[in-house]
Amino acid sequence: MAGEGSDQRALQYEQTLMYGRYTQELGVYAKEEAARLRESGQRLSITERSRKLDLLQYDKGRCAKCRRSGYPYVLDAPAQDFISVCTLRCQKFLISRVGEDWIFLILLGLLMALVSWVVDFCIAICLQAQKWMYGGLDSNVFLQYLAWVTYPVVLITFSAGFTQILAPQAVGSGIPEMKTILRGVVLKEYLTFKTFVAKVIGLTCALGSGMPLGKEGPFVHIASLCAALLSKFMSLFGGIYENESRNIEMLAGACAVGVGCCFAAPIGGVLFSIEVTSTFFAVRNYWRGFFAATFSAFIFRVLAVWNRDEETITALFKTRFRLDFPFDLQELPAFAVIGIASGFGGALFVYLNRLIVQFIRNQKTINRFLMKKRLLYPALVTLLVSTLTFPPGFGQFMAGKLTQKESLVTLLDNRTWAKQGIAEEFDYIGHSLAWQHPQVNVFVTLVIFIVMKFWMSALATTIPVPCGAFMPVFVIGAAFGRLVGESMAAWFPDGINTDGIINPIVPGGYAVVGAAALSGAVTHTVSTAVIVFELTGQISHILPVMIAVILANAVAQSLQPSLYDSIIRIKKLPYLPELGWGHHEKYNIRVEDIMVRDVRYITLSCCYRDLHNVLLTGHLKTLALVESAASMILLGSIERAQLQALLSLQLGRSRRLEFIRERAAAEKKRLSIVSNSDCEDNHQRASQEVRFQISTEESSFSPTRPVLQKPLKPALKRPSVVERPTDIPIGSQDHSNNSSLKNLFCVTPDAELMEDDDDLEDDMTIREIAEWEEMQLDEQVNFNNCKIDPAPFQLVERTSLHKTHTIFSLLGLDHAYVTSIGRLIGVVSLKELRKAIEGSVTVKGVKVRPPLASFRESGTSSSENEATELHKLWDRQKSTSLPGECTLSESDEKSQ
Amino acid sequence: MAGEGSDQRALQYEQTLMYGRYTQELGVYAKEEAARLRESGQRLSITERSRKLDLLQYDKGRCAKCRRSGYPYVLDAPAQDFISVCTLRCQKFLISRVGEDWIFLILLGLLMALVSWVVDFCIAICLQAQKWMYGGLDSNVFLQYLAWVTYPVVLITFSAGFTQILAPQAVGSGIPEMKTILRGVVLKEYLTFKTFVAKVIGLTCALGSGMPLGKEGPFVHIASLCAALLSKFMSLFGGIYENESRNIEMLAGACAVGVGCCFAAPIGGVLFSIEVTSTFFAVRNYWRGFFAATFSAFIFRVLAVWNRDEETITALFKTRFRLDFPFDLQELPAFAVIGIASGFGGALFVYLNRLIVQFIRNQKTINRFLMKKRLLYPALVTLLVSTLTFPPGFGQFMAGKLTQKESLVTLLDNRTWAKQGIAEEFDYIGHSLAWQHPQVNVFVTLVIFIVMKFWMSALATTIPVPCGAFMPVFVIGAAFGRLVGESMAAWFPDGINTDGIINPIVPGGYAVVGAAALSGAVTHTVSTAVIVFELTGQISHILPVMIAVILANAVAQSLQPSLYDSIIRIKKLPYLPELGWGHHEKYNIRVEDIMVRDVRYITLSCCYRDLHNVLLTGHLKTLALVESAASMILLGSIERAQLQALLSLQLGRSRRLEFIRERAAAEKKRLSIVSNSDCEDNHQRASQEVRFQISTEESSFSPTRPVLQKPLKPALKRPSVVERPTDIPIGSQDHSNNSSLKNLFCVTPDAELMEDDDDLEDDMTIREIAEWEEMQLDEQVNFNNCKIDPAPFQLVERTSLHKTHTIFSLLGLDHAYVTSIGRLIGVVSLKELRKAIEGSVTVKGVKVRPPLASFRESGTSSSENEATELHKLWDRQKSTSLPGECTLSESDEKSQ
Repeated sequence: MAGEGSDQRALQYEQTLMYGRYTQELGVYAKEEAARLRESGQRLSITERSRKLDLLQYDKGRCAKCRRSGYPYVLDAPAQDFISVCTLRCQKFLISRVGEDWIFLILLGLLMALVSWVVDFCIAICLQAQKWMYGGLDSNVFLQYLAWVTYPVVLITFSAGFTQILAPQAVGSGIPEMKTILRGVVLKEYLTFKTFVAKVIGLTCALGSGMPLGKEGPFVHIASLCAALLSKFMSLFGGIYENESRNIEMLAGACAVGVGCCFAAPIGGVLFSIEVTSTFFAVRNYWRGFFAATFSAFIFRVLAVWNRDEETITALFKTRFRLDFPFDLQELPAFAVIGIASGFGGALFVYLNRLIVQFIRNQKTINRFLMKKRLLYPALVTLLVSTLTFPPGFGQFMAGKLTQKESLVTLLDNRTWAKQGIAEEFDYIGHSLAWQHPQVNVFVTLVIFIVMKFWMSALATTIPVPCGAFMPVFVIGAAFGRLVGESMAAWFPDGINTDGIINPIVPGGYAVVGAAALSGAVTHTVSTAVIVFELTGQISHILPVMIAVILANAVAQSLQPSLYDSIIRIKKLPYLPELGWGHHEKYNIRVEDIMVRDVRYITLSCCYRDLHNVLLTGHLKTLALVESAASMILLGSIERAQLQALLSLQLGRSRRLEFIRERAAAEKKRLSIVSNSDCEDNHQRASQEVRFQISTEESSFSPTRPVLQKPLKPALKRPSVVERPTDIPIGSQDHSNNSSLKNLFCVTPDAELMEDDDDLEDDMTIREIAEWEEMQLDEQVNFNNCKIDPAPFQLVERTSLHKTHTIFSLLGLDHAYVTSIGRLIGVVSLKELRKAIEGSVTVKGVKVRPPLASFRESGTSSSENEATELHKLWDRQKSTSLPGECTLSESDEKSQ
Repeated sequence: MAGEGSDQRALQYEQTLMYGRYTQELGVYAKEEAARLRESGQRLSITERSRKLDLLQYDKGRCAKCRRSGYPYVLDAPAQDFISVCTLRCQKFLISRVGEDWIFLILLGLLMALVSWVVDFCIAICLQAQKWMYGGLDSNVFLQYLAWVTYPVVLITFSAGFTQILAPQAVGSGIPEMKTILRGVVLKEYLTFKTFVAKVIGLTCALGSGMPLGKEGPFVHIASLCAALLSKFMSLFGGIYENESRNIEMLAGACAVGVGCCFAAPIGGVLFSIEVTSTFFAVRNYWRGFFAATFSAFIFRVLAVWNRDEETITALFKTRFRLDFPFDLQELPAFAVIGIASGFGGALFVYLNRLIVQFIRNQKTINRFLMKKRLLYPALVTLLVSTLTFPPGFGQFMAGKLTQKESLVTLLDNRTWAKQGIAEEFDYIGHSLAWQHPQVNVFVTLVIFIVMKFWMSALATTIPVPCGAFMPVFVIGAAFGRLVGESMAAWFPDGINTDGIINPIVPGGYAVVGAAALSGAVTHTVSTAVIVFELTGQISHILPVMIAVILANAVAQSLQPSLYDSIIRIKKLPYLPELGWGHHEKYNIRVEDIMVRDVRYITLSCCYRDLHNVLLTGHLKTLALVESAASMILLGSIERAQLQALLSLQLGRSRRLEFIRERAAAEKKRLSIVSNSDCEDNHQRASQEVRFQISTEESSFSPTRPVLQKPLKPALKRPSVVERPTDIPIGSQDHSNNSSLKNLFCVTPDAELMEDDDDLEDDMTIREIAEWEEMQLDEQVNFNNCKIDPAPFQLVERTSLHKTHTIFSLLGLDHAYVTSIGRLIGVVSLKELRKAIEGSVTVKGVKVRPPLASFRESGTSSSENEATELHKLWDRQKSTSLPGECTLSESDEKSQ
């Protein structure tokens, strides 16, 4: 049984790898290790590591900034020199002005176009190599089979292995992760250089294998990686590349670039990325996406011209449908049928994909088997798929020898296959020949193709390599459309005649419609319509495409989540789900039903010991500051890091040294005047003096910037650079050596600072230090140096879940305090909200209200509770004005 | 001089008509009239009217809802009958389920398609009639001229007159108004049936005249009108058509429908409407626009097929460019030039348009002259324009005889004019002949066309008729593009040869690019690119179009506001301007710099007299409720209407009758037991009893719904229908007759209620009533019945203007309270914000931060002020815990 337990753990680890599930276990593991190392005394390496951990854990969302906050200091340290200051300013001006956003966007577009083109080029070479190998061995079917099968197995296995060794985060599409990141949750490991390398190389190999995988999802991720890395690179030149929310805007733009340069579809790319990643969209950022995506698509296509692949810039999958009479009005029902069927198909695809993942996760025997060899699963899947597509084998019934791109080109062809037969007329490439089979007709081929590719794609996208599902789905949709089109063409050989003019049916048009509809259904987007127009270079079928896409969306959205949301759930990414249609009961859930009532707070009059205890117990990013435990009136919120800094400052080595100095001075004084005041007393007084000194120090400053203990550490005093309200030197002065307390908060003991104050010998024993620390902890906290957010987001307890969701989505909050007439009674974080939305709370609702309704109805949320509260206040007011606190604390106790 | 004064006023009125400037004077006027009528004793008609006024004034944004709030009551009144309840429920279920949004959207799409088609049809007939008249009179040039000129003058004059008589709000484009309405500001008069009729008929006549006017802007407005009216109509069937914010979502959808059915461009329509009307866009509402616009465009084009105009559904201005080689890579600089030039041109157009309006407004002589005859200005402009386009006259140099549509068709033609000459080759319609002139070549014709049309369009769009500027601008852009294209074709007669294959230049493609670029520059949108593809049915020029549009936008946005923003400024619509690029100083303005410090508030312990005074002085929609004047702790906000209801209740006839009854009973009692307690005392006690009775009454209820004085008026007690938190019976019990106070708050004295309580004779004299009222006013307000919003939006005084703007835009607020540690210190409304943004406050800024930056930096806004405040609290905490109020009030006084 114990063996099974460890198996279970390994199994879970395997699962993680299998689908790159996001866990925070990594962080926990690293932390444990850090703690172990710390105890073994390797101080320097720990502190660096634990600092990183702390930053990662407490400063999510502010991490990039904080880390870079040390930067201007380094830059401005030699800035006493006037000329260098001038140069710096000029440089900064240039970078901030000229290089505002558009230089960044151009660079990003250029880079992504190059990446996209190179990847495409490599994939083409890989596919050609496979064809060449397969073609060269046509004397022996077995050898041919071996070549046909081994090649993709090797590539996929390499891709899976490479990705998992270098960066397991690169596995999969990347769109779910980007959705989460754009929501404001920082998944830092998803935007590293390692991931970039793993994703690009892994993707190239995976697609080069010829498996039914797509390039589009990973390209969204790659573009975002590019943007993040570029942003980091640009920040070396200073300027505005430091702001995190600007980075988020840039990431949104990058997503558009990803789609844009993948399909050479700038408009579709922008719309698709908006639909897929955003909840609320700021129209003023619209241009970013358009600009970058257009530039990127342009360069991408120019590269093709430059490489002599194309004569000029045209669409990627150019169609040549007739313009004058693209389709008959009476064909519209057929298009609608495609739309509805695609809707069901799309939902089925998402379901199937999830089913496969869950099946493999849940089946213990399979899992245990797969666990042993991590790369077995990809290899097996590849083997299965490539065996089935082996052209002389079953592949002959499903155009197995065509690559994905070739399939698409043939499917979008504007000639009809069914009637005139393929062999006679098709002259140009001959790819369409693959659809013909001597025994079975083209309908059977198409049906087999659709069915086989359907489950193959659903299966292949579960392989742990960088891959998307858009393109496979797109091809299946095109095949389905083609099938309907060919059927129509067979049914009405001379077209649905109107007024004697014969306008034969164009099955290629149906293929376009089908492709847009199915991919729209799987991704829950309407913009696939635009992508299809841009991909084919023809917009003549706009109305059929739009109708089919809308119908497909209507059907699919009512049956299943989108593929990306499904993956988000599978991977358990920290994402706030949408309030979909039909979540009417959400209107009846109130914040008070879901809030956490046991809020960690600090009071204005707390002492450092309380601070210490609060920091020890909770793990929230920010802590509430209340007036007093009795009144619980919310004054603001303080970041954890700030409090840590406060505490470190209080217990810091520098303060201790100061104390020692004071004590020594007092000692000297006492010796000189030979007084006999006892040590205890002196002790006390000294510490008081220190306290006093600090407070006067601060009150003499203009309190615009919290300069930390100026006289004690002039080296640390930063020149007041360009206003940067958040560059908080998190505990940068904290390096008392052995205190057990201090290990909790060991942040940034920079080596250079270590050498400071070395003239004063630290002659305190550990016991003395502990005593001193205990004494320090009993002092009252001085919040003057502390950045307090005076307006943390507040909700009242009767706020509906729906309104809460809207506010959280709109403002990108991660927590909000719940107050009742100014008194803090609870806190709601994303976690609670997610739980509530995912349906653990089930209160049946009555009323349907549109999303933003709650904002207009200011009178909505006032009912019983507020009434009662007001009643209390009212009573209190009447019964002579008592200090109030007692009444409030009573009700407070009641409410908790 | 007095004459000049009145002239001045008439002049201003004239100006209002001239550009349909939005003023609130109408409301003021109506109110004055109402007051006059009230005094003359026509009670019933007044109350109805004043009720409307009150609703309009105080309940903007909630008006529709409140008015309909009586509805469920009416519906449920006979609901004692079980069967009717069932039927009702089924009906409600059907309507709320099946008929959710998409039925509404389908109806809207259908309706708009019909309207669009009918309008197009009528315009075509009008234009044909003009041609016919002009053609029939070709014997006499003078008669021809008369016919050519009179026809448009008559039509435009009729349109202007009709619009101004029926609904002056129908003047102009309508997009600026829709932008304002979608922002959340209710301009009720813009969404009435009258406006709809005026807009449709006015637009048809205006466009039928052949003036360079567009259909697109007005169609956005017409679609919104349709949606509003349809929504009103649907609400007759109950269900969900009552929610105002749902209506706003529907209006946003309607805007997409407007563009969609005008150009048969669903995708472009959606994007254009989003870009033009929204600031923040909820992606979940995306489908609405797509669905409705697609359906509408579909029906619109089906109607054309049905009318045998078209064989099948195709684009409106179908182009036939070659697909294989649409353009050479080396032509791209020319496209870029078109983009940049269009950017300047677009900015110039906006500037010119504004200049003309301002010139005519400011020139007193012109104004005085025009003032005399209101229709003179449109007639004069029309005369000027049509004289210049008279085909045998100057019109021969600018293709004057072509209608706008014909011009566009010829400009987008895929043949080259310059080289092979027009006459020889053009076979199909011969419209292109108009561009040919025996003396001058086509370049001169084009240049003259562009220059003339440019100022003509800018001038024509200032005429007070329903008209848009999109289409004229589009045509000018196409002509400019054509000019560049023809020049290129002349420069490279055999195309820019690549590898020996001759691919001649297609000037039509340049025309497409130019059209998209110029219209994009004028409207500041990127989606004109999509509109252009959908209009022409070809997407082959996607990259040149995108590049040109982006460049045009970049240039135009840095020079001028968009045409719609310009009109918003001219019309002084209550719109919150965008924070554009380069408004860096906004980061340094704080809310405390712009807030109104003199907040109207009521305290929890105030008496009715205070309430009365507050209501008399201010005109804010909601009032702040604070704990006490000393502490100023904000508890919530109460709607003005609620307070009015409270006051009416207190002074209402029913209470007075109750008082009389009590007094009578007491009298009787006194008489019966022959006691000699004096009247004064009894008086006092009676009123106390009443008070007491009410409060026990309420405390015995469960306070979920504020049921008003149950025992006194059982007829008014509503059955607790489906939870509708806002159906407040605004003062519905208020009908004391003569009290002067009551006139202020005379709301809904329903006739049926008047008959109630008639058994009790109201024997109080006016003096007695006044006395009684005085007495009542001194009582303390009981807020138990009152809907209090416990979470009005709060900002802290250090919130930056930028953050404030973002919050206001995102949440659609119209005011927010400014608090400092719970204490109310000011209020900011849209007005202050607008003023601040428009630059009356000029603090130079330093730092550029992206829009949502402020949300992530929770530590940003804490600095001096908070520090000081905290310091105070800190001091207060230390100096023993006093009841606090005094300290707070001190600091309060300081801060005010």
